[in-house]
Amino acid sequence: MILARVEGSVIATKKNAKMTGHKFLVVRPLVIDSPEAVAFKSGASTLVAIDSLGAGEGDVVLVVQGSSARLAADDKDSPVDAVVIGIVDQVDIAKRQVFRAN
Amino acid sequence: MILARVEGSVIATKKNAKMTGHKFLVVRPLVIDSPEAVAFKSGASTLVAIDSLGAGEGDVVLVVQGSSARLAADDKDSPVDAVVIGIVDQVDIAKRQVFRAN
Amino acid sequence: MILARVEGSVIATKKNAKMTGHKFLVVRPLVIDSPEAVAFKSGASTLVAIDSLGAGEGDVVLVVQGSSARLAADDKDSPVDAVVIGIVDQVDIAKRQVFRAN
Amino acid sequence: MILARVEGSVIATKKNAKMTGHKFLVVRPLVIDSPEAVAFKSGASTLVAIDSLGAGEGDVVLVVQGSSARLAADDKDSPVDAVVIGIVDQVDIAKRQVFRAN
Amino acid sequence: MILARVEGSVIATKKNAKMTGHKFLVVRPLVIDSPEAVAFKSGASTLVAIDSLGAGEGDVVLVVQGSSARLAADDKDSPVDAVVIGIVDQVDIAKRQVFRAN
Repeated sequence: MILARVEGSVIATKKNAKMTGHKFLVVRPLVIDSPEAVAFKSGASTLVAIDSLGAGEGDVVLVVQGSSARLAADDKDSPVDAVVIGIVDQVDIAKRQVFRAN
Repeated sequence: MILARVEGSVIATKKNAKMTGHKFLVVRPLVIDSPEAVAFKSGASTLVAIDSLGAGEGDVVLVVQGSSARLAADDKDSPVDAVVIGIVDQVDIAKRQVFRAN
Repeated sequence: MILARVEGSVIATKKNAKMTGHKFLVVRPLVIDSPEAVAFKSGASTLVAIDSLGAGEGDVVLVVQGSSARLAADDKDSPVDAVVIGIVDQVDIAKRQVFRAN
Repeated sequence: MILARVEGSVIATKKNAKMTGHKFLVVRPLVIDSPEAVAFKSGASTLVAIDSLGAGEGDVVLVVQGSSARLAADDKDSPVDAVVIGIVDQVDIAKRQVFRAN
Repeated sequence: MILARVEGSVIATKKNAKMTGHKFLVVRPLVIDSPEAVAFKSGASTLVAIDSLGAGEGDVVLVVQGSSARLAADDKDSPVDAVVIGIVDQVDIAKRQVFRAN
């Protein structure tokens, strides 16, 4: 899984029939600030993840990728490769709290 | 899933028998312009994705990768690892509209 | 598999029902220091891995990723893509001991 | 799928029994030359792909990766993660022909 | 598959029960020296691969990754994502021999 921040959303009217009803979130992976390892920064890549937990912009979330993402979707036959599996409350690095949800 | 822009197409006459009839699109992943996060730019990699939605050059699309791509193809036994699952109408980042299809 | 160092942990109260009871560790991949190949340094990415072996901060662990991670979890239907499968005692590179657990 | 150029070949006498008879090609992924997007250049990574279509050095090919590669192999139980599924005749980017096989 | 050089080994006493008896090799991917494409150099990443062919330090090997790696292991339920499937005798690039095992 990766930690990612929800940055926005995607609207696609013309889509695969199995994708109807899904909410598409634009998320950016978070990486530990090297080399001090005391804070997060945004990574270089951008993903679109399906959400069923009600995550919103600014939230830090746990995203599962690949075939395991299908097990997190409501329908195991959904052609999805990234799904939000948790909304993060707190992250501790080296016993320091580096993130806490408001 | 990733956001990608359709850049072109590929013709391959000599191919695996299961690939007959597929349309191959050349797509480039889009990433959020760091650190302001208000626009997209093209990523460094290049993919070839199967399309059954009628996407054309210049379109921004949602692409699913890996084993989940097979569930988006018409035939689950197709040896494909990237399929267009949506043609994007609009992308919002930080409540600003950063892309809207013409 | 990759070698990674456990850097911290994640708390997510609101999560996929199948993730209840899992312990989420923040880990950073370790790479061989190029070009001398005699020591490890931390890679640029950050992962969250499930742990059932009792790994703690500072431990070097073996992490399996992708669909194989599910086979390492207690429940094969868990939507996980990274699981700790070993706590590392020793790593030898070019017949030199570059890591030994305390 | 990715576009890649066949650069060479690999001989491995001592191998997994299921790999007997496979032809191993060394291929390099091709990426669109950023930012003009009018030509290809070689990417930084190197793959070894199985070929059953008769691709040779210098050919541009389509390569499928991951679990889908097994569906392109003659034997679905082959432990392969990259297979040539097409020999490319032509690639068009932005309506310009950027590659054509001789 | 990728080409990789065996750099060392990992000892992990505390591990997933399914991993007992596996030999863990530290390997570094090899990439073609760009742009001349006449030699290999070590890539930036580091993997740990399971070996059942008797590969040793300094050997160049073929490594299969992802779910296909399980098909190369003796037990298809092993939680492994990288397995050595061949010990390389020779690599030719652009009709030049760039590697030959001693």
